[in-house]
Amino acid sequence: MPIFAAPTRDLQFVLHDLLKVSAQDIPGYAELDADFTSAVLEEAGKVASEVLAPLNTVGDTEGCHLENGVVRTPTGFKAAFDQVREGGWTGLDCDPDYGGQGMPYTLGTAVGEIFVSANMAFNMYQGLTHGAYSAIHAHASDELKAIYLPKMVTCEWTGTMNLTEPHCGTDLGLMRTKAEPQGDGSFKITGQKIFISAGDHDMAENIIHLVLAKIPGGPEGIKGVSLFIVPKFVVNADGSLGARNGVSVGKIEEKMGIHGNSTCVMNYDGATGFLVGEEHKGMKAMFTMMNEARIGVGLQGYAVAEAAYQNAVAYAKDRLQGRAVTGTENPDGPADPLIVHPDIRRNLMEQKSFVEGARALTVWGANLIDRAHKTGDEAAEGLISLLTPVIKGFQTDKGFEMCVQAQQVYGGHGYIEEHGMSQFARDARIAMIYEGANGVQALDLVGRKLAADGGKHVMAFFEMVKDECKAHAEDARMAGFVEPMKAASKQLQAAAMYFVQSGMKNPNNALAGSYDFMHMMGHVCLGLMWTRMAKAAYDALDAGASDKNFYETKIATGRFYMARQLPACAMHLQRIESGAETVMALGAESF
Amino acid sequence: MPIFAAPTRDLQFVLHDLLKVSAQDIPGYAELDADFTSAVLEEAGKVASEVLAPLNTVGDTEGCHLENGVVRTPTGFKAAFDQVREGGWTGLDCDPDYGGQGMPYTLGTAVGEIFVSANMAFNMYQGLTHGAYSAIHAHASDELKAIYLPKMVTCEWTGTMNLTEPHCGTDLGLMRTKAEPQGDGSFKITGQKIFISAGDHDMAENIIHLVLAKIPGGPEGIKGVSLFIVPKFVVNADGSLGARNGVSVGKIEEKMGIHGNSTCVMNYDGATGFLVGEEHKGMKAMFTMMNEARIGVGLQGYAVAEAAYQNAVAYAKDRLQGRAVTGTENPDGPADPLIVHPDIRRNLMEQKSFVEGARALTVWGANLIDRAHKTGDEAAEGLISLLTPVIKGFQTDKGFEMCVQAQQVYGGHGYIEEHGMSQFARDARIAMIYEGANGVQALDLVGRKLAADGGKHVMAFFEMVKDECKAHAEDARMAGFVEPMKAASKQLQAAAMYFVQSGMKNPNNALAGSYDFMHMMGHVCLGLMWTRMAKAAYDALDAGASDKNFYETKIATGRFYMARQLPACAMHLQRIESGAETVMALGAESF
Repeated sequence: MPIFAAPTRDLQFVLHDLLKVSAQDIPGYAELDADFTSAVLEEAGKVASEVLAPLNTVGDTEGCHLENGVVRTPTGFKAAFDQVREGGWTGLDCDPDYGGQGMPYTLGTAVGEIFVSANMAFNMYQGLTHGAYSAIHAHASDELKAIYLPKMVTCEWTGTMNLTEPHCGTDLGLMRTKAEPQGDGSFKITGQKIFISAGDHDMAENIIHLVLAKIPGGPEGIKGVSLFIVPKFVVNADGSLGARNGVSVGKIEEKMGIHGNSTCVMNYDGATGFLVGEEHKGMKAMFTMMNEARIGVGLQGYAVAEAAYQNAVAYAKDRLQGRAVTGTENPDGPADPLIVHPDIRRNLMEQKSFVEGARALTVWGANLIDRAHKTGDEAAEGLISLLTPVIKGFQTDKGFEMCVQAQQVYGGHGYIEEHGMSQFARDARIAMIYEGANGVQALDLVGRKLAADGGKHVMAFFEMVKDECKAHAEDARMAGFVEPMKAASKQLQAAAMYFVQSGMKNPNNALAGSYDFMHMMGHVCLGLMWTRMAKAAYDALDAGASDKNFYETKIATGRFYMARQLPACAMHLQRIESGAETVMALGAESF
Repeated sequence: MPIFAAPTRDLQFVLHDLLKVSAQDIPGYAELDADFTSAVLEEAGKVASEVLAPLNTVGDTEGCHLENGVVRTPTGFKAAFDQVREGGWTGLDCDPDYGGQGMPYTLGTAVGEIFVSANMAFNMYQGLTHGAYSAIHAHASDELKAIYLPKMVTCEWTGTMNLTEPHCGTDLGLMRTKAEPQGDGSFKITGQKIFISAGDHDMAENIIHLVLAKIPGGPEGIKGVSLFIVPKFVVNADGSLGARNGVSVGKIEEKMGIHGNSTCVMNYDGATGFLVGEEHKGMKAMFTMMNEARIGVGLQGYAVAEAAYQNAVAYAKDRLQGRAVTGTENPDGPADPLIVHPDIRRNLMEQKSFVEGARALTVWGANLIDRAHKTGDEAAEGLISLLTPVIKGFQTDKGFEMCVQAQQVYGGHGYIEEHGMSQFARDARIAMIYEGANGVQALDLVGRKLAADGGKHVMAFFEMVKDECKAHAEDARMAGFVEPMKAASKQLQAAAMYFVQSGMKNPNNALAGSYDFMHMMGHVCLGLMWTRMAKAAYDALDAGASDKNFYETKIATGRFYMARQLPACAMHLQRIESGAETVMALGAESF
C-alpha cells in the first residue's frame, strides 16, 4: 500500500517564511500564527494518513456501484466521511453565519492539499460541496442560503455541479436542459447532464445539485442560461426532507481513474428547482464556483504528484539495483539504492521542485483570493484571475507528468496496480480535463485574461517579476535565481508582444501559441515562487534558523528548477513565434 | 468502439518514396516492389481492422484469468490467433529453412506496425514468439533449432522472455534462478521470474520459455548468466508433446493496461531446460532478442499513437463545439467542429508529425538491420546499435504523450473507458518501461553507444546529417527543413562534446544529461527523417505524381515538425550543460 505523510513542514514554510500570513493585513489572518496553523495541519495530516490514505487503494479497486438507483461508495468511505465531518473539516473556511469556522481560504487550501494527496477521489465529495456552497453563498437569496448552507457546511448534504450535456461540454451555449417556471417561484427542470462527479452516493442525507438550464423564451446561447438548486430530496419548510425529487442516476461511468468518486449521468424529469441569482445570469454565478474549482483542480495536480513523489523516493532509497558510477555507495549490500543514479535523481528532482513550486503558487493564489474577497483589493482580484488558468492548466499537465515519472522510478512495479503508482497517474489524468480542458484554460489565458482591463493585470505581473529580480540584483547568492528569471520573463513578454502584433493580423497566430504560452507562464510563475522561496530560506539561515538542512535543501531544489526547467521558456517562445502557419496549413480532410 | 484503418498509403511512401527498398542491394529486397508490398499491407490491414481491432476493447475489459493453473485469454482471442496463424503472418520474415516466408525484416516491421496499432496486447503473443525465435535461431544448436523453430514460426508454440526476478530487473547480475546440469546435456531450472508477458495462455499447444539462469560455480554477477529453453511441455524425440515440465504460473498481475496479454509470475521448480549458446554467455544471446525487442517496443510507441490519432481526428471532425475565431466554418450547424480550433490543430499536428516521423525512423531502422544481417555491413550495424535506444526511449515517451494528447481531444469523453481513448494511453504506458526502462535506454545511449568503437558511429551519424543538409543547401523549398536541422544537429554535437569534456571530470555530468540527450537525438532523428521525406515528396511532385494532396500534406506536416518540435533541442542542450551539480546537490536523506 502506498505511503503518505502530510508535508506539514513545507506548508508551514509557505505560510510563514514565504507568505508571512500572520503579518498580512487581511481580516482573520492575524490568528494564523505558526503554532496555530501547525496544530491544524498536523491534525489534518493525521486524518489524512490514518483515515483517508488507507482508503485510496480501496476506492480504486472497488469503485462505486449503482444498486437499485442508489450509488454505493467503496467500503469504509461512509465511516471516513463521518469522521471528516465530525472533525469539523468540511466547514473550515465557511461563513460562521452558516456554521462554518470562518478561517481564511488560504488555510482551507493548505488543509485541502493534504486531504487530496491522501485520497483525491474521496475528497471530491467534500470539494464539490464546497464549490456549490460558494456559488450559493455568493448568489442565492437569503432564504435559499438559510435552507441549504448550514447542511452543506457540515456536508450532511453534499453538492454537485451540473454543466455538461452529452452534446456539449465547453460550448455550454448549446445546452438543452430546460427550466420551466411554475408560477410559485420554483421551476421544473428537465434534461440530461453527464460527468456529474459525486452525482449520487450513500454518504449524505441529501444531495444539492447546482444545475445550469435554459428558461424557455430567454436569450439564445450562453446568455440564456440560468442556475438552479435541485435537491435530491425536496426540503420541507421546517427543513426536514420531503419527497424524492424528479432527479435520478442514469448510470455510473467507467473511468480511467478516480474510481472512488461516482461520476454519474443525471436525468432530470421535471425536477423541482430554485433559481440561484438572476434569470439568464447563470454563467456568472457558475463562474464563482468554477474559478474556485479551477484552483482546486490545479491543487489536485500537484497534490497527487506529492503523494506519488513520496512513494517514488521511498522506492528509490529502498530498491537496490546497479552501482553508482562514481563509486559504490552501499558496499555491504548486493547493489546500491536507485537514488544514487543521476537519472533517477533528475527524475526525483523534477518531481520535488515542481511540487514545492506549485504548492507555493497555489497557496499564494488562495492568499490573493482572500485579499480580493476580504479587502476588496482589485489588483489581487485581477492577478488571481490572470493566474487561475495557469494554476489549473500548467499544474495539472505537470502534475500528471510527474505522477508518470514517479511511476517510472518503479520500473515494471510501477505498471502493475499492486504498488498504487498506476493509480496516481490514472487519477491525476482527469485534472487536465475537467473544469475546462487545459486547451480551454490556454484559450482563457491568451484570448481573455491577457487583454482583460486593457492588459493591466499582465503588465502588473511583469512588473512584479521585474521588481523581484531587481530586489536581489546585488545579492550574489541569488544569481542562480535572478538570471534565469530575467531571461524567462523577457521571453514571456516577447511572446505576449508577438500575440499583440501578429494576433492583430490573424487571431490564429495567438491561439496557435496559447498552449505554449500557458506552460511558459507556468514556468515563470514557479520561477518567481522559487526566487521568493530562496530569498526566504536565505533570510531564515541568516537569522540562524535551527533546521538548516531544510532551508539549504529548499535553496538547492530551487536552483535545480531554475537551471533545468526555466530553459523550457525559450523553446515555448520559439514555437509561439513560428505562428499559426504550420499549425493551420492542412485542410481538415488532410488529417 | 474505436476505429482503425491501416495507414498503408503512408507505409508505402516510407518503403518506396523514402527508402526505395526495391532498388536497395540487399538480398530479398528486389522482390519488394510497390505492388507486392501494397498487396501484403492491404491484406494485413484487413486482418487488423476486421479481426484484431474489434478485440482490442474486449481484451481490455475482460483481461486474462488464471483458472486451475491455466491462463484463459479474452473471448475471441484464440479464434483470432488461429486466423493470424493460418494467414501465415507469424512467419513472414522467418527463415524458410524452418517454414518461414523469408521476407525482409523491413516488411515484417511494416506489417507489425499495423497489427500493433489494431491490438497491442494481442500482438504481443506473436511478437514475443518472434523475439524468442530470433534468439534461438542465432544462438541455439541445430538440434534445438530443428525441434523448436518450425513450431514457433507458425506460432503453434509461442515464446516468452524470462529475465526479471522480484529483486532484480535492470541489474540482472543479482539473479538467483539456478540451472543445475543433469549430466545428460539438460539442466534443472529453479527460481522465480516475474513480469513474463504471454507467460501462459490457451492459444498455443506449447510455450517455449527463454530463461536466464546461473549455473552453480560459474562467474559472479552478470558474467555467470546463461540462457535456457524451458518448454511448458517437454518435447519427445519424435516432436510430440510429453509430460508437463516443472514450470507453473504463480499469478497474473493486475496492470494499468495491456490487459489482453497475460503478465505472469512464473515459478520454475526443477524444470528441464536446454542451454542456448555457450555457458555463461546468456546475456549475449539474450541481447539478440532484446535489441529486436527494443525496436519492436519503439514501434509500439508510435503504433498505438497512430490508432489513438485516427480516433482523435475522427472526433475532432465530428464533435461540434464553439466557433472558429476567424469566422464560422459550419454555418448550418449549431457549432463548428473541434478541428477548426488552433489549439486542437496544434494537438493533432503534434500527433501526426510524430507518428509519421517515427514510422520512417523505425522502418529505416529495420532496413538497417536487414542490411547489417544480410550484407554484413558494419556501418549499418553500428548505426542501428546507436539508434536502438533512441527508437525505444524517445518513441515510447512521445508515443505515450501523443496518446494522452489524443485522449485530451475528447475532453471528458476521453477519460471514460467507453471510447477507448483511455486504453490507448494505458496500453502505451508500458512501452516506456519494459525491455529496459527509458532511463536505462538513455544510459545505454550516453554511457555505451556514443563511445562505442571509438565514437565512430555517432560521428558517422553527424556526418550523415551534415551531408543531408548540404545536399539541399541550394534548394530554397527545403529551407524550412535544412535550417532547423542544422541548428539542432549543432546542438546535439555540442551536447556530445560537453559529455566528453565534463564527463571526464565527473561521469555524473554526462549521466545527469542522458535523458535529455536521448530526447534531443530523437528530435534530430525525426528531423532527419522529415528532411528526407520532404525531399522525397518534392521529387514525387516534380515527377508529376497523381496524388498531389498526399505529398503536399507530407511536406506541410514536416514543416510543422521542424518549426514546432526541433526547438526542443536548444532546451535540452541548456539543461545538459547545467551539468550534474543541481541534480546531485542533495543528500539522499533530503528527499
